[in-house]
Amino acid sequence: MSAPAWASPRRTSNGPVRVATIGAGRIGTNHASLVARLIPGARLFAVADPVDGAAARLAAEVGAQVATTSIDEVLAHPEVDAVLITAPARSHTDLVCAAAAAGKHVFCEKPMAVTLDDADRAIAAAHDAGVVLQVGFNRRFAPGFAAARRAIDDGRIGTPQLLRSLTRDPGPFAGDPARIPQWTIFLETLIHDFDTLSFLNPGAEPVSVHAFAGALIRPDAAATGHLDTAVVTIRYDNGAIATADASFSAMYGYDVRGEAFGSGGMVTAGNGRSTDMTYHGPEGVGIDTARRDTDLLHDAYLGELTAFVDAVRTGTAAVVDGTDARRALSIALAAVRSVETESVVAV
Amino acid sequence: MSAPAWASPRRTSNGPVRVATIGAGRIGTNHASLVARLIPGARLFAVADPVDGAAARLAAEVGAQVATTSIDEVLAHPEVDAVLITAPARSHTDLVCAAAAAGKHVFCEKPMAVTLDDADRAIAAAHDAGVVLQVGFNRRFAPGFAAARRAIDDGRIGTPQLLRSLTRDPGPFAGDPARIPQWTIFLETLIHDFDTLSFLNPGAEPVSVHAFAGALIRPDAAATGHLDTAVVTIRYDNGAIATADASFSAMYGYDVRGEAFGSGGMVTAGNGRSTDMTYHGPEGVGIDTARRDTDLLHDAYLGELTAFVDAVRTGTAAVVDGTDARRALSIALAAVRSVETESVVAV
Amino acid sequence: MSAPAWASPRRTSNGPVRVATIGAGRIGTNHASLVARLIPGARLFAVADPVDGAAARLAAEVGAQVATTSIDEVLAHPEVDAVLITAPARSHTDLVCAAAAAGKHVFCEKPMAVTLDDADRAIAAAHDAGVVLQVGFNRRFAPGFAAARRAIDDGRIGTPQLLRSLTRDPGPFAGDPARIPQWTIFLETLIHDFDTLSFLNPGAEPVSVHAFAGALIRPDAAATGHLDTAVVTIRYDNGAIATADASFSAMYGYDVRGEAFGSGGMVTAGNGRSTDMTYHGPEGVGIDTARRDTDLLHDAYLGELTAFVDAVRTGTAAVVDGTDARRALSIALAAVRSVETESVVAV
Amino acid sequence: MSAPAWASPRRTSNGPVRVATIGAGRIGTNHASLVARLIPGARLFAVADPVDGAAARLAAEVGAQVATTSIDEVLAHPEVDAVLITAPARSHTDLVCAAAAAGKHVFCEKPMAVTLDDADRAIAAAHDAGVVLQVGFNRRFAPGFAAARRAIDDGRIGTPQLLRSLTRDPGPFAGDPARIPQWTIFLETLIHDFDTLSFLNPGAEPVSVHAFAGALIRPDAAATGHLDTAVVTIRYDNGAIATADASFSAMYGYDVRGEAFGSGGMVTAGNGRSTDMTYHGPEGVGIDTARRDTDLLHDAYLGELTAFVDAVRTGTAAVVDGTDARRALSIALAAVRSVETESVVAV
Repeated sequence: MSAPAWASPRRTSNGPVRVATIGAGRIGTNHASLVARLIPGARLFAVADPVDGAAARLAAEVGAQVATTSIDEVLAHPEVDAVLITAPARSHTDLVCAAAAAGKHVFCEKPMAVTLDDADRAIAAAHDAGVVLQVGFNRRFAPGFAAARRAIDDGRIGTPQLLRSLTRDPGPFAGDPARIPQWTIFLETLIHDFDTLSFLNPGAEPVSVHAFAGALIRPDAAATGHLDTAVVTIRYDNGAIATADASFSAMYGYDVRGEAFGSGGMVTAGNGRSTDMTYHGPEGVGIDTARRDTDLLHDAYLGELTAFVDAVRTGTAAVVDGTDARRALSIALAAVRSVETESVVAV
Repeated sequence: MSAPAWASPRRTSNGPVRVATIGAGRIGTNHASLVARLIPGARLFAVADPVDGAAARLAAEVGAQVATTSIDEVLAHPEVDAVLITAPARSHTDLVCAAAAAGKHVFCEKPMAVTLDDADRAIAAAHDAGVVLQVGFNRRFAPGFAAARRAIDDGRIGTPQLLRSLTRDPGPFAGDPARIPQWTIFLETLIHDFDTLSFLNPGAEPVSVHAFAGALIRPDAAATGHLDTAVVTIRYDNGAIATADASFSAMYGYDVRGEAFGSGGMVTAGNGRSTDMTYHGPEGVGIDTARRDTDLLHDAYLGELTAFVDAVRTGTAAVVDGTDARRALSIALAAVRSVETESVVAV
Repeated sequence: MSAPAWASPRRTSNGPVRVATIGAGRIGTNHASLVARLIPGARLFAVADPVDGAAARLAAEVGAQVATTSIDEVLAHPEVDAVLITAPARSHTDLVCAAAAAGKHVFCEKPMAVTLDDADRAIAAAHDAGVVLQVGFNRRFAPGFAAARRAIDDGRIGTPQLLRSLTRDPGPFAGDPARIPQWTIFLETLIHDFDTLSFLNPGAEPVSVHAFAGALIRPDAAATGHLDTAVVTIRYDNGAIATADASFSAMYGYDVRGEAFGSGGMVTAGNGRSTDMTYHGPEGVGIDTARRDTDLLHDAYLGELTAFVDAVRTGTAAVVDGTDARRALSIALAAVRSVETESVVAV
Repeated sequence: MSAPAWASPRRTSNGPVRVATIGAGRIGTNHASLVARLIPGARLFAVADPVDGAAARLAAEVGAQVATTSIDEVLAHPEVDAVLITAPARSHTDLVCAAAAAGKHVFCEKPMAVTLDDADRAIAAAHDAGVVLQVGFNRRFAPGFAAARRAIDDGRIGTPQLLRSLTRDPGPFAGDPARIPQWTIFLETLIHDFDTLSFLNPGAEPVSVHAFAGALIRPDAAATGHLDTAVVTIRYDNGAIATADASFSAMYGYDVRGEAFGSGGMVTAGNGRSTDMTYHGPEGVGIDTARRDTDLLHDAYLGELTAFVDAVRTGTAAVVDGTDARRALSIALAAVRSVETESVVAV
């Protein structure tokens, strides 16, 4: 990823980066709260959410100056330097484009897009506007995954050969299959793993993809196309073979792990612990696990938002950007086609 | 697996089971030594190996009464109750059939066969002769894997949904690709994992198989069909999806692990430790890993040979038998076809 | 610890708590940087250090408005709400008293005092002035130790019976024994462990103390009274028996661990890992360890400073205060006497 | 420990070592069963136990030829080569002396003696008779502890400085304090730890001892002198300081651990796991712990009995002998005096 030659002409002061959150749901609340309290150099300035009262509530909680149901209002606001897009997934691309057109730097939650055309459109919009476009692949900022990547960069595993990434949401699964868009497991869940695998196999491009998927948690919803469990294998142009798996219901808590095996050694990251406390009781030895991504990945969320604000302040490129989102999406779309055709799919 | 109605008419005494080893190579030496020293109720009686002097050397080392270059001689010997087949892989089926025909109980190292016809032939031979036929899937007897299965049988993971098994031989890889039969990674290495996955998904049958494989350790040998790295995914008739991966060269030692994730929880087995000693030094925290299967799986080898001798003594069926070997082989052969056709293959 | 009935009359605004750091050394820099960047509701306003240029350098780095070589100046400054005392250990009591007399809330690094009279003096000064007095026992805020305490509070270990706490500084030891005040290992190092043991044995008071100590790292300095290795055992009034050990030179990194064993179970905290990344290489399995307390205990430092600022803002008592410092000191002084007299000492 | 110049004149054959077990209780049964099934080169020949029927039952179970209520009978039996003393602790010394006088090689469970005079008497008896005398300090043969010692011998921890060993019996405690001899926690439980500490600090001699102990599990029995929880600290002549702790009731299972910290690094051994299986369920992550020493230390029991039989067969000295028992006892007796006098005691 070469740094584009854009500047940030609209940042007229050296003060804190004024941030607006678009979307006041669970992740929007998490991000707004972190920006308001814990991100150096940033100020949570505005909250926008079309749901009546949602923005006002969050703005009051985190001390934002502006609360509005109008996204257009924050995009047009001259004091907003940057926006965090935490709206529903399928609206992301349009919001990225609108924000970029308004000259706002953009942090966009994954997935940035669900078609390659949309991904290209978002990348072009940010490029043309000369704004930072960072995508919410938080796992790159989790300390264990970041340390794994450093070990790879230091040559400690040699050439990557076998890779693994997994995402298992804490159970029991309480979602309504009828309200979950089709292919969500690939486009919204495993998209994290597809990016992680690229992160652990730097410079390689995916070549072939195969996926098995099923409605194992909710077999009653299988007929409607519901998928809640999946295994995807990917071959890269450097020969490495990767596996990603996902489940919507891990009874033991939120589980995010990575493994990179190479000619010289192996790194693993992620262990599901919430702290380094271990309990030994009548039932054996126990370790507290995290039940929420915002607990397990707190440091990762902090890290990605800090990196975004730093990029905006220093006029440098995002460390994980639209092209990374596009690469992960290309794998997700190939996995979709693999399930549809029950075959191996070229990326 | 129902227990066949065979008896063991040729066991004329209540004394120790008299065992002959066919093959005095690395595994034959390991097994002969264990039988001679550590398997209750067994006596290492004979060693046969066509290589000049090999049987004599091993017999002297372990105190066997008979040493011969003639396999026929031990099969015809009236004092031999049971044989351990540890000869080269591609001779296994014929030896199983000959031993069974001679009325000897048979412990056969994996793979029992490399074609389904051969597998059927071996199963039939043992059945017709009324002898025990146990296959060397030692991992079922490793304490951690056995405990994992008990947890599954106890319902602690619920319905299996995602499974994983891997085998990574200690590196650096020193083999000669030209001397390794084609498809060895599936037929001889991953065959262990295919059995382990069935062990962790009891009662399920494999339905579809996909494999990616390559010559990642020795890319120079790729043109001759050499494969040293592989990832296989399998879908079972209960919906569970499994991944098996293998490498011929893990720089950190012999690595054998299993994972079974289900609707109620997860079990993992295998951690590569050779002891529970942990070293903390200037380079960080270190754990001694095992460099040899006969170290890491010592308890597993003991367990499988003890189980075999017990089955012979008590006239009960082997706990892992020819049908298990056939099931694992069916996956291996599907993986071969998947690589050949670059497609998903029905089992 | 009952909450005193003081108020905070001098906080005249609802704005951020304006903090001055007294001492611009290693820990002062750490704390100033955290307050400036990461503590919600606080502003790093001033830095004082008598060493020429030290305050100016740090103030520039963290963006403090005031830099001075005069401690009196910051104590007299009307805009300073609270001070962080990170000056040399033996000046702490006087600084606490002066700051309290000036009406400033006080966060004091350990040890708050090295005599019981001094401890009483500091406690009284804060009480009389009605200011918050928090002591820098950061381990209480480390996530693993805090989780251990929660497990204890939840009754999961039953009645505490055996306790352990240890502190091992990263090696190799590079200090000059001649410049380390006598008894430092008890008064400045193990003081953390003495507090941790009280934290893990809530409500209990120490009764008897025994200590073995030596100059094991620098035996050449033994004649001057240098001590670099020590083991202290403590009996509490609830019968529990605790062990604390310390070394100035752990070659594998900074090592801080706790263990509380009781009638119902055990909790352990601390594992020396810097991240959840694990490396597997030719030398075995490795885990990155932390080489600095400010890395290993980053979250703990954040936690204690956040708690201090919250106490100041909300007018509540410090969660770890002068009486906790006095209790830990009483054990340290008993340990000193135990070494001097080679006997068991009543607290 | 220099090898004595004794020979084994009474071993008239090269056949298996014929072993008699004296004592058919829990440990006697464990040892007899191991010898009968799993110790190469040994045969379980006789069982003696004064309790009516006990010897007969065990002999039938393990296939011993001779069962008797008369200990004299097995000591006088010309076909007995060696005896395992697993009788009640306070009879050990007399049995060692009688067996040695009868020319039998002796494996004696700990404690070999409970007075130093008795220890000297046992050592002299074995020496005069020229028989092997091995003491049941099994922990030296546990793979993790043995690996720790190898790391120490290899110089990987440098000079030992801080040592730890602990023994916690699985709870809940079901013993009757009135039937447990006074000082059992030192003479029978911690005696293992005192030997382990010497094992991890090779060549050093104990110099000073301090102990805190109490009736924390059964405070109602405190008045009778019952002790169920103890912490002992020991200073050695090489400066190293050790801690040993014990509890009669660990609710999480049998817990045996060791730690040796030195100028170059640290080793730890023991983790309470019964297998490498890990369970992840709704309550967090769980590890099966061992509830019995004969499970957790199975490999250690095998190792010590194999070593004993090998010593008998090859005419070499025991690897852990009467002088090791005497050293551990000297610490235990000093700990007793420390509790009695509430002071530090010279060994």
